[in-house]
Amino acid sequence: MDQIKIEKLFNLEGVTREPKFKNGWYQKDILSVNQFDKAGLSYIFTRAEEMAEMVEKVGACDLLKGYVQACVFYEPSTRTSSSFIGAMERLGGSTIPITQGIQYSSVSKGESLVDTMLTLEKYADIIVLRHPEIGSAAQAAKYASVPIINAGDGAGEHPTQALLDLYTIRKEFGRIDGLKVAMLGDLRNGRTVHSLTKLLENYDVSLRYVSPDTLRLPLNLMNELINKGIDVRETDRMEDIIKDVDVLYVTRIQKERFTDMALYEEVKNYFEITEEVLAHAKKDMIVMHPLPRVGEIHYKVDRDPRAAYFRQVRNGMFVRMALLASVLGEA
Amino acid sequence: MDQIKIEKLFNLEGVTREPKFKNGWYQKDILSVNQFDKAGLSYIFTRAEEMAEMVEKVGACDLLKGYVQACVFYEPSTRTSSSFIGAMERLGGSTIPITQGIQYSSVSKGESLVDTMLTLEKYADIIVLRHPEIGSAAQAAKYASVPIINAGDGAGEHPTQALLDLYTIRKEFGRIDGLKVAMLGDLRNGRTVHSLTKLLENYDVSLRYVSPDTLRLPLNLMNELINKGIDVRETDRMEDIIKDVDVLYVTRIQKERFTDMALYEEVKNYFEITEEVLAHAKKDMIVMHPLPRVGEIHYKVDRDPRAAYFRQVRNGMFVRMALLASVLGEA
Amino acid sequence: MDQIKIEKLFNLEGVTREPKFKNGWYQKDILSVNQFDKAGLSYIFTRAEEMAEMVEKVGACDLLKGYVQACVFYEPSTRTSSSFIGAMERLGGSTIPITQGIQYSSVSKGESLVDTMLTLEKYADIIVLRHPEIGSAAQAAKYASVPIINAGDGAGEHPTQALLDLYTIRKEFGRIDGLKVAMLGDLRNGRTVHSLTKLLENYDVSLRYVSPDTLRLPLNLMNELINKGIDVRETDRMEDIIKDVDVLYVTRIQKERFTDMALYEEVKNYFEITEEVLAHAKKDMIVMHPLPRVGEIHYKVDRDPRAAYFRQVRNGMFVRMALLASVLGEA
Repeated sequence: MDQIKIEKLFNLEGVTREPKFKNGWYQKDILSVNQFDKAGLSYIFTRAEEMAEMVEKVGACDLLKGYVQACVFYEPSTRTSSSFIGAMERLGGSTIPITQGIQYSSVSKGESLVDTMLTLEKYADIIVLRHPEIGSAAQAAKYASVPIINAGDGAGEHPTQALLDLYTIRKEFGRIDGLKVAMLGDLRNGRTVHSLTKLLENYDVSLRYVSPDTLRLPLNLMNELINKGIDVRETDRMEDIIKDVDVLYVTRIQKERFTDMALYEEVKNYFEITEEVLAHAKKDMIVMHPLPRVGEIHYKVDRDPRAAYFRQVRNGMFVRMALLASVLGEA
Repeated sequence: MDQIKIEKLFNLEGVTREPKFKNGWYQKDILSVNQFDKAGLSYIFTRAEEMAEMVEKVGACDLLKGYVQACVFYEPSTRTSSSFIGAMERLGGSTIPITQGIQYSSVSKGESLVDTMLTLEKYADIIVLRHPEIGSAAQAAKYASVPIINAGDGAGEHPTQALLDLYTIRKEFGRIDGLKVAMLGDLRNGRTVHSLTKLLENYDVSLRYVSPDTLRLPLNLMNELINKGIDVRETDRMEDIIKDVDVLYVTRIQKERFTDMALYEEVKNYFEITEEVLAHAKKDMIVMHPLPRVGEIHYKVDRDPRAAYFRQVRNGMFVRMALLASVLGEA
Repeated sequence: MDQIKIEKLFNLEGVTREPKFKNGWYQKDILSVNQFDKAGLSYIFTRAEEMAEMVEKVGACDLLKGYVQACVFYEPSTRTSSSFIGAMERLGGSTIPITQGIQYSSVSKGESLVDTMLTLEKYADIIVLRHPEIGSAAQAAKYASVPIINAGDGAGEHPTQALLDLYTIRKEFGRIDGLKVAMLGDLRNGRTVHSLTKLLENYDVSLRYVSPDTLRLPLNLMNELINKGIDVRETDRMEDIIKDVDVLYVTRIQKERFTDMALYEEVKNYFEITEEVLAHAKKDMIVMHPLPRVGEIHYKVDRDPRAAYFRQVRNGMFVRMALLASVLGEA
């Protein structure tokens, strides 16, 4: 091949991209809440607070300028994908948005998840993955050379949701220790409940679980709590707990997690959080929900200052900003 | 929680994000053409002219660097969503693109429009909304704390389309007063016709409406024009008006707005703009169309310098740039 | 219209956007491999090398800051669209992503490809087009005033794939002349095989084609090679060629290109590249594949250093960066 003489585009003499912070998260996959101990949580939450202050004051920064995130959602989730996209944009980075159609594309030609990961890691510095199958994020992480952030693997985990939940509790009360946290809804299938429970095991909290008998917290998780000596109770009546909880964490009864539709119909209207219900609650408690809701919290409750679920949404962006920046070595 | 000692990421001492211009549009929702009087239009159009000059000369700028727009399209519209995305990009800002799949996502889990807005406002500084139901944008604006731009609410309004239509007339002729504007097609259902009509009421124009008898301009709108003393005529024959109009605003007979398919079949080929038709028109008139077209303007007409409909498309980006920057306080 | 007095936004006195490099590709459409001779290839490949070095060292740059690319995919292709989006992002530019839904949008209202191009050129500086029909990219280029990059037009061409294929061979061996290249699979319908063949005609290579008898290289292409005096052979047995090839270019038997499903069933498992097969091959040969694969290369082969297909994916981004920057006059 003839060598042609052209002016060079870049002057890269001696230039490299080094991580600015040697935090414990640099280049780590974020797959499970089990990766987070108190120190790890503290690091991310401190960073999230800085992100919050930055966004409130100036909207955005250039911390991740030049970084590319691939958002790969095999099942669409507007809230989660938008949160990651917004997080990256407010850090000055950019996104390859594969948030709706991957099932119609490579997948329809029979490509495996692993091949898709091995492809996208060539374009992106980090991959955010939502996939309907348990273990998919771990499998992706096993093969991919860039960090994978698990944005939900079916009935498995959704660690960034649990992180933003815990961050919200910490932000609202200024502490986690000493609080009484109640979780409501489908405690058997609800991965947000399972993940938040695991994170709360790191703290000195009291836990209350409220559900119909058929949707109780899995036995192994309950035993884990008991073995750790955590103050925990189960009930099927909200009245038992509403008076003295600090955090009421409400979850949707998720139709899509049921195989037995008769069981779903039986429990779907099991409880509703209304103004009347909250009249019995403490003045400084908060109501949380991972959203979307489909009636389990009445709209009128939104006006109550104790309704924290949309503040929780905003916190999600800050926590994801902190994670992205930490994993990429820039925070 | 252990407090860890980490170097701060940002120096935000005394930093705030203030609007640079106290124009009348700062933080306003853009829902309806009724919000625009002559002074308001003039402000946006002056800004749009500056945007046009900037894009023609340098392509893009950093005016909205750090700002995030969510584009939420419950029904896809490539032209409109691309126009807003391009507008934001040329201003240095970024977009959360939810332009195709929202119906498969949160909506399929039963989430309401209001909850989606209350979520996206936590990530974005402004929300551009297309929704099939009349009043949806107003409802979104009622609840959202960030500005909503109505990008079409079903048979309701599509104000940015009307603004770009009027801006095009002004740009092509250097004025609006004194012009004779004819509108063709489905005048009963065409929201672009209704909206442009309302904007033109602010000016000293002559209006001509050409349609089959079953698709005439709604009575209340016609009465409004008459009561304002505007020179207005209706006809079902293009021949009556083609000779002396300055602007021929053609619209598609929109199949999707018909419930009676027999009626649609009857009128769908009511008129076609051909080179022969334009042979009768003035040399300095223009042909406009909100697009897409499906045959009502022949392709051969595209080569005629009077064909202004693709210039109109480009003007759309400039007008949306002006709106975004004004609403966000940066223009 | 009242003229209002407002502070100007931009100071554009004497400012213009000039191409920085008068390379042969400035403002050119990239439609076919036939546009590329040895000098043209050399230019792009030299630029691609610079892109590779820049990305490996610093991740991204601002070379195309302020430029907007529209990615319009009438049929989704995650790999190709992500590659272009990532390429633009690493150059500091931005994308209007229409990668999934255009068929549900303007097209469903009956809009033509040409009108879509005439619209998108008003928002974007360059259009990347994937469309299922042969000739669609050429038609788009005929009408659009901005450059079109053909990202696949059905059974037609996919020139950027062929460029990245050739670039990979050059990068892996440091040369192209003197190599023995074998292509496997559906040689009749495989556009990547046809395009790479045409590019290789510029070099002093030996070519081997391996396929079932029903899927042989088209006669006209074979005659072209013979007429050019290129050392070329056909076979239906991999054993005939595996021992002394330098490049084994494997392709999928593409179900979607078959009209006769019986024929597809007969040939779909025609060959598989396994560790055993590669045991017979040279130590410094490479295996390539345009991807996605559906079993024709076993996963275990991925660990073999001769497996070059994912390096090939990454090269794709570099080649597309080189093309985008060259066509836009910035490289």
